[in-house]
Order: sequence, then structure tokens, then C-alpha cells
Amino acid sequence: MTMNRIFTLDRRPDGELADSDLGSHEQAITAPAAGQIQIRTTCLSIDPTIRVWMSDIPQYMPPIALGEVVRSLGIGVVEQSAHPDFAAGDRVVGLIGWATHPTLDVAMSFLAKLPAELPLPDAKVLSLIGMTTGLTAYFGLLDICDPRPGQTLVVDAAAGAVGALVGQIGKIKGCRVVGIAGGPEKCRYVTEELGLDACIDYKNDDVGKGLDEHCPRGIDLCFENVGGAILDEVLLRMNNNGRVSICGLIGDYNAAGKRTPGPYNFGMILMRRLRVEGFIVSDHGARFPQATAELLQWAQQGRLKSIEDVRQGFSQLPETLRQLLRGEKHGKMLLVP
Amino acid sequence: MTMNRIFTLDRRPDGELADSDLGSHEQAITAPAAGQIQIRTTCLSIDPTIRVWMSDIPQYMPPIALGEVVRSLGIGVVEQSAHPDFAAGDRVVGLIGWATHPTLDVAMSFLAKLPAELPLPDAKVLSLIGMTTGLTAYFGLLDICDPRPGQTLVVDAAAGAVGALVGQIGKIKGCRVVGIAGGPEKCRYVTEELGLDACIDYKNDDVGKGLDEHCPRGIDLCFENVGGAILDEVLLRMNNNGRVSICGLIGDYNAAGKRTPGPYNFGMILMRRLRVEGFIVSDHGARFPQATAELLQWAQQGRLKSIEDVRQGFSQLPETLRQLLRGEKHGKMLLVP
Repeated sequence: MTMNRIFTLDRRPDGELADSDLGSHEQAITAPAAGQIQIRTTCLSIDPTIRVWMSDIPQYMPPIALGEVVRSLGIGVVEQSAHPDFAAGDRVVGLIGWATHPTLDVAMSFLAKLPAELPLPDAKVLSLIGMTTGLTAYFGLLDICDPRPGQTLVVDAAAGAVGALVGQIGKIKGCRVVGIAGGPEKCRYVTEELGLDACIDYKNDDVGKGLDEHCPRGIDLCFENVGGAILDEVLLRMNNNGRVSICGLIGDYNAAGKRTPGPYNFGMILMRRLRVEGFIVSDHGARFPQATAELLQWAQQGRLKSIEDVRQGFSQLPETLRQLLRGEKHGKMLLVP
Repeated sequence: MTMNRIFTLDRRPDGELADSDLGSHEQAITAPAAGQIQIRTTCLSIDPTIRVWMSDIPQYMPPIALGEVVRSLGIGVVEQSAHPDFAAGDRVVGLIGWATHPTLDVAMSFLAKLPAELPLPDAKVLSLIGMTTGLTAYFGLLDICDPRPGQTLVVDAAAGAVGALVGQIGKIKGCRVVGIAGGPEKCRYVTEELGLDACIDYKNDDVGKGLDEHCPRGIDLCFENVGGAILDEVLLRMNNNGRVSICGLIGDYNAAGKRTPGPYNFGMILMRRLRVEGFIVSDHGARFPQATAELLQWAQQGRLKSIEDVRQGFSQLPETLRQLLRGEKHGKMLLVP
């Protein structure tokens, strides 16, 4: 008999997620009540924000409660439906969680049907037009940074799921785009395959010197995924009236709940009249259809590439999240249970 | 024979300004060359930014060069003119510097004539409509925070030259305004005389608890003069899509050049989708006439009060600046040489 396998959050991680922070259980599959559907999970999106949700800090959604299934974006196929808009066989995307056969409330889990004609497999949906990837890059760059031709844009985690799309959209908009990534292989990918103007290897090179070399007219725009020392080097080189889009601060996530200092060059916000702005993609829901259409169009024109790092096996979820936060992956991290 | 007394910056201060960082000299008064005027200084504006200019850090103007007269805003009366737009007896405002009888290039020192009909003495000009006071409050609050009726605005250094005006303009715009100031006397002034809704005494009370009590619906807007621990408490309580106007970070100025951490709650910019923006008043020069007129109108209507802390004696300049940065003053600090 097929069982629903789940991971629950039983203890808040202190630093890196430990296996002992989680509970691993098998349950009988539950028939859906009114408003619910029961799905078979086909692909889970492994995102840095999962680690944020595990910490009891002020954040944009409530943290995962202890004992609850770990929250995660994913795609599944409906097996049983008690909701009028869904039928068995439909492909759905939403907050499926770390579960193989969950029964979920459609509204509470933000479940939406994927159009039957959508020409993308699960992995490409999650890596190219997903909320945590394409839509995040789209709104965070276009709305907050407002890139103009000829401006210099710096994006860190430039080989990552979001950064790679931000860099390419920056090029589409006519910017000089300088990436920052860890290691020569990621940097080669960023310049040769994604087409960015330069990429600085923060693991082997001096980020400040690299920015001096590759941003000779200073930095107008920054799309920030990391925080910490890299953001400090960027702030020092921002031009007057520059904009910094705060998408993520992944460097801090394992320290969530501890006192980690903000950027030492915070005063540059004043000296260079910077606008530093955070955003959460879900605030832009009304414009998702338009953004999705534009992302798909760019992809079909070959101007927006994505690669996926797809892991196999439900039991690998904790290790996969750890590797994501260590940067030990290449492209959008996904897991097929 | 009357001499021109000056203070030069001979060494960059390490922490608080020391008398030995400055040179004190007397020089013969110099006849102006073409484009210059020679003035008698009547009032100097003692502003936190003078301490920033003394440090060799990235900033919005070049730092004061070693050996140069200390840069300072002030008012004077023209004694000799070699500029077609100025005549002896004109009252002028601009970057006069720490000098009693300087000879200055009109353009380089941003000197402008005050209208003969302006109904304000020097001290009121500098405290109510000066670049470093009224105009700073005006643009920093209205342009960056965009206050709306019913929003909650927090302003620190609320009894200070800028903060007092920001708080009153916030009330004019219909906000609930909560000030933060040091000591019961300043707090009493802020609520009873300036009319703010509440004031938290950061020297004697817990700022976080005070904000919880006086901002029951959270904080929508923050006008930041101080930085450090106070900003951290504010950030923790900001509402979604809140705005933070970075006017000053006076808490850091004596540490300029050292590594001081940014706000520990920097991540709240992301979690609450905040817009944190710095500004420099001189960027808004085109709109100074309109802003000045509106500030004067509010003052004439009794809706905008200012008080001045006027010190006497040119030799007191270094100690006056030290006291400003320690908060040992009440109102706009000025010095009559």
C-alpha cells in the first residue's frame, strides 16, 4: 500500500539544518475533505527561503510551526479532488510541502492549476517561471532596480536559480551586467553561457578589486541575494542615486535568530543617496500572468536560459537543502521524490 | 587692526575631535579677487555633517583637505565685493567656514544673497529654513517618506534641529508622530511644545517597549538621524512597505573610518519589503524656493516652531561641535563669533 511520506519540523535548527531537527514519518493517504485535493508530488523546489521559514524570526510568512510538515513550493498531480475546480490528473503548483502524497486545502496551500497546454516539464516550470525563480527575478529587478540601457548592474549568486535569470534580464534591458559567483566553473557558465559581461569568483579572487576592474563607471544597480561581505564591497562602489534590490540574504539564513551585523558600509546609503528596497514576490500576484508570458517569450527566443540541478529521492531532502545553502549545486535545485 | 581668525583641519580626528586636530591662526584680511567677496561672519551653523567632512571616508562631498579651513555653513555680511551680484552690506549665506573675516569665491562656497525683506534674524534663518535644518526636514520627510494621514511616523533626535521640524511637519501632514530623544526635559519639549503624540526617552527608558506602547499599529515611516541600536528597534517594528528616510547616522560619525556594523535587523528590509533611502538636501536645489516659502508660511501660522542654542565666541567652535555630537544642547546649535 502506498503511504504518504513526510518530513516534519520538530526542532528549530541552530545553524545548519540537522537531520535530528526533522521527523520522518509515513502515514496513510487521507481522502480530501471539501475544498481539499490529494496529490502525488512530482517535483519539489528547494529554495533558501525554506531555511528562513524554519527559524522563529520576524518574516514575511509565519514560520513553520513545530510538528508541521516542512513548507515547500512544488508541483504535483491530483489523485483525488473534493474541490470543484480540480480533477484527477490535473497538474498543480503551490505550497505542497515535504510530502509525497499530501492532502491539502487548495486555498491555504495557494494551489493553482497549470494550464494543460504549458509546454514545460515540471523542472522548467519551477526554474524558469516559478514564483521563487523567474517571477522573483522579474519583479525584483524590473520593479525595484528599474534598469536602463548603459547602467551597470551587479548580481551576486549569479549562477544561482534567481541570479542567472536576473543577469540575463539585465542584458535584455541593455545593462552592463557583472556577476559574482563561487568558483571558476560557475563564473565560466555565467559569462560564456548566460552572456554576462564579467563574473567575479568570490572564492578565489578579491571581490573589491574585481568590482573596480569590471565596473569602471561604478555600480548603478545591485540585485542582492547574499548579503554580508559581498554587499559591503558593492555598497562602497555604488553611484549616486543607485538602487539595491534586496531579494535574499542567504549568507545570514543559517544564522537566523542570532545577532548578525548589517552591512558595515550602511552609511553609503546616505552618502550616495541609495534606495535599498526589499520585496516579496507574492505581493505582485496580480501581475503574474503578464510576467509569466514575458518570461516564456524570452525563453522561446533563446534569450533566457536556465539549468536545473535535479536530485532524486525523498529521503535526500534535508541534505539537498544543506547543499543549497552551502552553494554546492549548479542551477536551480529541485528534488523528484 | 582687525584680523581674520580661522580654524584649519590639521589632522583627521580619531574619535571625538581634539583641539590638537585643529590649527588656530590669525591672518590679515585679504582683498577679494574677481568673483570673490570678503565677508564678516555673523553666525555659524554647527552641524553633525562637519564631523563627517573631517573624516577621509567616501561621502557626498570631498572631505576637508588637511590644512584647509574647517567647512561650515554660515551667514555673514559683505564688507568688500569683487563680484557683480554682491555689494557691501549684503547678507549672504553659504559655506563660510570657521573664519571670522574670510575672502571667498562666490561659486566655490555656494554663497547666495538673503533677500533684504526676509523677516528673520540669522539664527532663525539657519534653524528654520537653512539647508541643514528646514530644507533637510522638508525634502527628507516629504520626498522620501511621503507621509499620509493616519500613518505612524517615528523620528529620532526629535528635539534636535532637524528632528523637531520633521516631527512638526509630520503632524501637519496628519501622521501619528512618536519622537525619541535623550532625557525627560527634551521629551517634555517634544510632546508639550512641539505637539508630538509621544516621546521616548532613550537614556532612561527601553526604546523597544516604548515603541510597542506608542506605536500600537506598528511603524509606517521612520526619519532616521541616529542609526545604531535605535534604528534596530525601529526596524523590528516596521510595517509592510514602510519607508525609512536616512538623513543622518550621527551615532557613527565619531567612529567614521572605523568598522561599525550596520543594523543587526537589516533583514527586516526584506521581510517587511521596506524602502530605505538616503538623501542629501543639496540634490533638491531646484525646489528650494518653493520649500522655503512653505516653511516660512507654516512658521508664520505658528505650526512650525524652532529653538536655538546660540553659543558665543569664535574660540568655542571645537567644544561646540563636540557638545553637538554628544547631544549636549537644546535646539539648533549656532555660534556667533
